[in-house]
Amino acid sequence: MTEKGLLIVLSGPSGCGKGTILKELLKKRDDTVISISATTRSPREGEMHSVHYYFISKSEFEDRITNDGMLEYAEYVGNYYGTPAKEVYENLENGKNVILEIEVQGAMKVKQKYKDAVMIFVMPPSVSELRRRLVDRATEDLEKIDGRMNTAMKEMKLASQYDYIVINDSLETAVDELNSIITAQRLAKPRMTQIIENILNS
Amino acid sequence: MTEKGLLIVLSGPSGCGKGTILKELLKKRDDTVISISATTRSPREGEMHSVHYYFISKSEFEDRITNDGMLEYAEYVGNYYGTPAKEVYENLENGKNVILEIEVQGAMKVKQKYKDAVMIFVMPPSVSELRRRLVDRATEDLEKIDGRMNTAMKEMKLASQYDYIVINDSLETAVDELNSIITAQRLAKPRMTQIIENILNS
Repeated sequence: MTEKGLLIVLSGPSGCGKGTILKELLKKRDDTVISISATTRSPREGEMHSVHYYFISKSEFEDRITNDGMLEYAEYVGNYYGTPAKEVYENLENGKNVILEIEVQGAMKVKQKYKDAVMIFVMPPSVSELRRRLVDRATEDLEKIDGRMNTAMKEMKLASQYDYIVINDSLETAVDELNSIITAQRLAKPRMTQIIENILNS
Repeated sequence: MTEKGLLIVLSGPSGCGKGTILKELLKKRDDTVISISATTRSPREGEMHSVHYYFISKSEFEDRITNDGMLEYAEYVGNYYGTPAKEVYENLENGKNVILEIEVQGAMKVKQKYKDAVMIFVMPPSVSELRRRLVDRATEDLEKIDGRMNTAMKEMKLASQYDYIVINDSLETAVDELNSIITAQRLAKPRMTQIIENILNS
């Protein structure tokens, strides 16, 4: 019998470094995958179907909503974004830990549907450091950065809704911490009950 | 402000390898100490006061019981064994994680007194492997080993009272798992509330 994987929800403000942490984490854990979101927006240059997103039509997306086929979804600037449920559940059944990199509102919806979800929030070491990182990216004008900072502050105020807080000061430490949380959660008692039984009967 | 350390209770049957795991763990974590027990029995050859045990008199031990100076204690073959509370609390206040390596009954008493204690149970990979390890030690005749196996089975049936189960199949993996549990617990939300506040106000 394969032990079921963990559903892990990872949130944190834009610029906190979630993407880089996840990339490094996957090098360390072959028992863990990242969920690919579905969206109704058009692919940007270089974006590939079933790698960056599942690009699906609006009617297909709405069908899935109706049939409870999305773990969570949101509408943003006229397009849907969401987490297809079936693939997540299949991976969990196959013993894979599945990471959803989603924003706070979606995260709360997932926790409602899936009580065992492990909720992790990534914080920057300080507000000023977050701003510096956003400015360094330099893909946006300063006005947009102010908007992102406002959103970030709102999101970070909800960090206390999560089970664990990882502060991304050193990348290596942050990756190690995320890795440790996953390892520890797999050893938590409720998951181990059957294994204890097996050992006692060995 | 130093962040308070974790109180960690580690139990597991004789022969499961707790001592070796702890020795390796301490090489990896300088933020963690092992609590030294007090006892009223006489030191054996090579045993040193305040290294292996605090060797104290029966009247001093009983004074400490009266004054709530023992986190837990038990009487065994006419001698007291227990965990001096003061040193544990001082280490926790100084930010050190403190590990108590104690048996199941004492562990439950600690959990009652200190709700935030992190309870970890070390299991052998199988019952037959545990017997093999006890026989390999060869410090005892087979009859005594049967007695220890009976005790071990009783203890392991209480493993489900703990928060985490570490199976000591590979020493390296077990040490890594214990290390991960400590890292993860330090990132758990209730401990991070003040840190989140500090970041938001930075």
